[in-house]
Amino acid sequence: MIKKTLIAVGALLILFPTMAFAEDPSAAQLNMGLNALWIMMAGVLVLLMQGGFILLETGSTRMKNAGHVAGKTIFTVGLCSLVYWAVGYGFTFGGDAGEVLNKFIGIGSFLFEPGLAAGEGENYPSSIFFVFQLAFAAVSLSIAWGGFAERAKLSVYLIFTVVFSAVIYPVIAHWIWGGGWLAADGAQDFAGSTVVHLTGAMAALAATILLKPRIGKFNKDGSVNEILGHNQVYTALGVLLLWVGWFGFNAGSWLAVGDGFFGFVAFNTQLGAAGGAVAAMLIAWMLTGKADITSMLNGALAGLVAITASCAYVDPWAAVVIGLIAGVLVFFSAKFFEKMKIDDPIYALSVHGAAGVWGTLANGFFATEELVTKVGIGQPGLFYGGGAQQLWVQFESVVVCGAFAFAAAFGVLWIVKRMFGLRVTEEQEIIGLDLSEHGSYGYPEQMKKTGMSA
Amino acid sequence: MIKKTLIAVGALLILFPTMAFAEDPSAAQLNMGLNALWIMMAGVLVLLMQGGFILLETGSTRMKNAGHVAGKTIFTVGLCSLVYWAVGYGFTFGGDAGEVLNKFIGIGSFLFEPGLAAGEGENYPSSIFFVFQLAFAAVSLSIAWGGFAERAKLSVYLIFTVVFSAVIYPVIAHWIWGGGWLAADGAQDFAGSTVVHLTGAMAALAATILLKPRIGKFNKDGSVNEILGHNQVYTALGVLLLWVGWFGFNAGSWLAVGDGFFGFVAFNTQLGAAGGAVAAMLIAWMLTGKADITSMLNGALAGLVAITASCAYVDPWAAVVIGLIAGVLVFFSAKFFEKMKIDDPIYALSVHGAAGVWGTLANGFFATEELVTKVGIGQPGLFYGGGAQQLWVQFESVVVCGAFAFAAAFGVLWIVKRMFGLRVTEEQEIIGLDLSEHGSYGYPEQMKKTGMSA
Amino acid sequence: MIKKTLIAVGALLILFPTMAFAEDPSAAQLNMGLNALWIMMAGVLVLLMQGGFILLETGSTRMKNAGHVAGKTIFTVGLCSLVYWAVGYGFTFGGDAGEVLNKFIGIGSFLFEPGLAAGEGENYPSSIFFVFQLAFAAVSLSIAWGGFAERAKLSVYLIFTVVFSAVIYPVIAHWIWGGGWLAADGAQDFAGSTVVHLTGAMAALAATILLKPRIGKFNKDGSVNEILGHNQVYTALGVLLLWVGWFGFNAGSWLAVGDGFFGFVAFNTQLGAAGGAVAAMLIAWMLTGKADITSMLNGALAGLVAITASCAYVDPWAAVVIGLIAGVLVFFSAKFFEKMKIDDPIYALSVHGAAGVWGTLANGFFATEELVTKVGIGQPGLFYGGGAQQLWVQFESVVVCGAFAFAAAFGVLWIVKRMFGLRVTEEQEIIGLDLSEHGSYGYPEQMKKTGMSA
Repeated sequence: MIKKTLIAVGALLILFPTMAFAEDPSAAQLNMGLNALWIMMAGVLVLLMQGGFILLETGSTRMKNAGHVAGKTIFTVGLCSLVYWAVGYGFTFGGDAGEVLNKFIGIGSFLFEPGLAAGEGENYPSSIFFVFQLAFAAVSLSIAWGGFAERAKLSVYLIFTVVFSAVIYPVIAHWIWGGGWLAADGAQDFAGSTVVHLTGAMAALAATILLKPRIGKFNKDGSVNEILGHNQVYTALGVLLLWVGWFGFNAGSWLAVGDGFFGFVAFNTQLGAAGGAVAAMLIAWMLTGKADITSMLNGALAGLVAITASCAYVDPWAAVVIGLIAGVLVFFSAKFFEKMKIDDPIYALSVHGAAGVWGTLANGFFATEELVTKVGIGQPGLFYGGGAQQLWVQFESVVVCGAFAFAAAFGVLWIVKRMFGLRVTEEQEIIGLDLSEHGSYGYPEQMKKTGMSA
Repeated sequence: MIKKTLIAVGALLILFPTMAFAEDPSAAQLNMGLNALWIMMAGVLVLLMQGGFILLETGSTRMKNAGHVAGKTIFTVGLCSLVYWAVGYGFTFGGDAGEVLNKFIGIGSFLFEPGLAAGEGENYPSSIFFVFQLAFAAVSLSIAWGGFAERAKLSVYLIFTVVFSAVIYPVIAHWIWGGGWLAADGAQDFAGSTVVHLTGAMAALAATILLKPRIGKFNKDGSVNEILGHNQVYTALGVLLLWVGWFGFNAGSWLAVGDGFFGFVAFNTQLGAAGGAVAAMLIAWMLTGKADITSMLNGALAGLVAITASCAYVDPWAAVVIGLIAGVLVFFSAKFFEKMKIDDPIYALSVHGAAGVWGTLANGFFATEELVTKVGIGQPGLFYGGGAQQLWVQFESVVVCGAFAFAAAFGVLWIVKRMFGLRVTEEQEIIGLDLSEHGSYGYPEQMKKTGMSA
Repeated sequence: MIKKTLIAVGALLILFPTMAFAEDPSAAQLNMGLNALWIMMAGVLVLLMQGGFILLETGSTRMKNAGHVAGKTIFTVGLCSLVYWAVGYGFTFGGDAGEVLNKFIGIGSFLFEPGLAAGEGENYPSSIFFVFQLAFAAVSLSIAWGGFAERAKLSVYLIFTVVFSAVIYPVIAHWIWGGGWLAADGAQDFAGSTVVHLTGAMAALAATILLKPRIGKFNKDGSVNEILGHNQVYTALGVLLLWVGWFGFNAGSWLAVGDGFFGFVAFNTQLGAAGGAVAAMLIAWMLTGKADITSMLNGALAGLVAITASCAYVDPWAAVVIGLIAGVLVFFSAKFFEKMKIDDPIYALSVHGAAGVWGTLANGFFATEELVTKVGIGQPGLFYGGGAQQLWVQFESVVVCGAFAFAAAFGVLWIVKRMFGLRVTEEQEIIGLDLSEHGSYGYPEQMKKTGMSA
């Protein structure tokens, strides 16, 4: 026999006597609770993606830098949280800017103090909305680090975190998600192929140009050396964590449970990721005779990045196609940037940049009338009777946001370069950033015994 | 003072104007939302289990194959998703087969297009149900890989993923969960001790028989060499991720929040896992004088596999007993398969096979009348006044599903072996699949410097 | 066109016919469902924290002990689950003790059997409450292991798990959360800075005193050798998993979705963690010239530990301050314990002990009237017009609980030391616990080839 036990509950009510509603909650309150719970879990999933970045970034780089690469993620997520709380969130969603200024930037809600509870008529508590949005800012920042890897000074991470979290990311997020001018134009970027991924990738591009390639990446005769990452178990597990977290990223961006539409968004997300993984694997196999692991993994991520803008706007078959194209694109994009002598160890420019652009443009082709009506933003795409109008808006978003992110990141880093320098010394780079920036190896036993100091 | 901020919410409503309900949702809509949210989170947890498989499988194998083992999981999950979407889901749950054919296979819902929202009277959106079911198919597939490890060609993974995701798994899932003939017989397999675990294990058995043992596993004189996995931190963390994900796997299989019964299922799951871990540790310690890590970890997993069929049908004390027995069983099972000269590097046959059989049969002993009534399937077990009837049905399920899975997997792999060959060359196996199948080591720095190429 | 598919749902209703409510659920039932779902997910997040401990503890110790450290976590979580189910939960929340005895310990609910569903008037099912509380007990236990690392015998883990899960943790949890005498005094410890963290840390302190420092940690001349942990990718990823899991830990402790207040708790949690990470990084950089990774990571954890008691009682700015102070404190605390010749490889005493004390006391300064009213426990703090009263209660909690945990753990371990010995032999310690306690290395390939056996 199973006996019901009321004791535990009773004991807890001693502790939190006000926890329960005084009277039965209304349907609106319960609906708010559903949304609150979903956005909270989605925010947790997006924060979990930082585990994916730790693994992806360390796995793609060398043992002598592993502690640095992993540890700086924790520190920069912390700093990003404080800065975004103090300033960045207000620049994104603050409502005091006035009609004209608001096109360009939000003002207000600095040092953000959310209500204790959701207010009358609110669909979710602003505290949870903040956590969710902060997690997105931190993802964009972690993407940017791809361009800094294995050669930037620790102090540069500190300075860039502040500027990126306070201004660069918030401005773009405001334009598209905060009621700014691109929102007014009907730009469709459901969960941030442009806002999060392209922004991060453009910052990475600025960094990698100013930092120059790592020692040994390119030879004087123009030939290329492959600097292999040290751990593909890390990279594969990192991709899995990112994939899992992406359900919060995409399906969470609907910000509601409602009639279950967030499930449709998740469904498309899975198909996009799958398409990317399969296409990249096959193209690598066909063209090089070996299905290299990096291409496979980049394919899955590119599929996810591409479906991010469009997951709520397209039919399932289109999600598959968008993913497949992203998988092929990322393969050629990685070759292209290498040929351009741009050193991009984590493939940020291809995975988040090229696939981010493609994903944003894909709306202009594949957005259906039914889904555009459902979401309530913009027009159907070229293949669904909407003409070229939405494609143009998507193109405009990509160009303007990409240009702004690149210019702002380049400007900041250029100033830092002039004033303090961006890059560790040649000697420091050779011994590794674990020793030079932090005083000990991330793998002290393995580095010591096997003499892998260079 | 804490100030309520409505700005953020306002800004978002500009973006997604149709997000909110036009009027207050009904109790049925809210209830659907609760279910949708739970199944979504459960599906995410089951996908997270792939991280557990990446770690468990790489940790249990050697460094020279680590990139291959980890990376192929990402690729095969992607391919499985496309195939299951296109075909497998329809064979499991499609409703167009007609009464007779439906006993054996579902037809319909190919290239599955879920509704945008849950329909009138639906308990959850079919989009989310799909994601949840797909995650189960992918788990069964990843179990099967245990039998392929460290010697199968990459192309074999590709072909087998297609056949397994399209036909083998869907047919068995249809029989028990899709309204097929074993469902009609009242087979109790709550979350898949048979459907998911035994099916995967039988495929692994077919593979390991056809592939033959790894080079160096068995000596000509009949003695056995232990080929140790390279990283027990990976295996332990892998088990933890699987354990955590199992709450989605088991408690999610109730597909509802309802009156809170899914919590009871989770409760039993925890007890079963705990029983398995403790029993395996103690038996290993008592019999060998050392509590080896692998036995401990296998015990926890065996407890989880065994409680999977029965978690909704048994009392808590029985969950503990089922777990304890599974922990002892997996220890002896692993010894048995080694004695049979079957090379099973990840212990798939013992953890998922033997414990899967035991877990399914356990219903026939321990299912209580109260819980059988609650769930609404089959009869109470032998110890609860139900006689041997349910035990017979459980036995029938195990035999029939196990035989089908083995025969189908064996047949497909036999054909592949004849046509293309299953196994890499001896030289490739010795240098490792990272180099032979993908062109670079998963641990390039460690393999190069320490000369671990063989 | 998107076609609605009712088939899947139909098929499942064949399986679980009683899953749906017979009639529409009431508002109270739906509200219970929301709470059930949130506490379940929070419990899963807290269990995921064990993955963080596996990584943090292995990464902070040496390669020769890695399999042991990782594997014992799985085993002890299993054993803790059985013991807490059989005894510990009843000592914490059992309601049969009578008014006087109940001040000190709960009685009842042994071999706990939850109801199948939430009962009339219950805010959540007791099954889920159990899983959540068990996860907390297991966290406290895993904190304690910090003091045992790299030198205790496996059998000691077994014995201590039983005593800690059955008595030590439950008694303290009963005092503050189970309606005991500190609850009656109005002690504020929202999610366990004292109950979970300080308790674990005091057990670690007792262990490390009785076990004595690891071989080679301190020289005869009084100088200190740094014994570096072997993998900072593990430690950083471990911190990230703990951080993510902490949303379940803290925000889940409200045990309700309600009006969304759990989101405010999560918001403060993020700010506290961020403050800790940033402050520790800066203080390490300023004082030592290098921002060492360990200090950064400890800072993030210390911020989380400190905000745990106060997350529901303080304003956001205070959460930042509490985190910042914790980050500075943990840096000096680690130096202090090293100077005291206490060998604490995982920094349990500083991260969970010092920061746990600070976090509990912080309520006495920063608790606001509005939030104290909301939560319904105790008084506002010194800075909010409450005088020194609450500060005194907090101080009392810390002293009494800390003293009890230390004394109880010390007593048990002292007896074990007399009877069986706590520590492996010198030879076993030198070859490592993987070999001595489990019979094989956790990293067999790396240990063999590079000769890292000492």
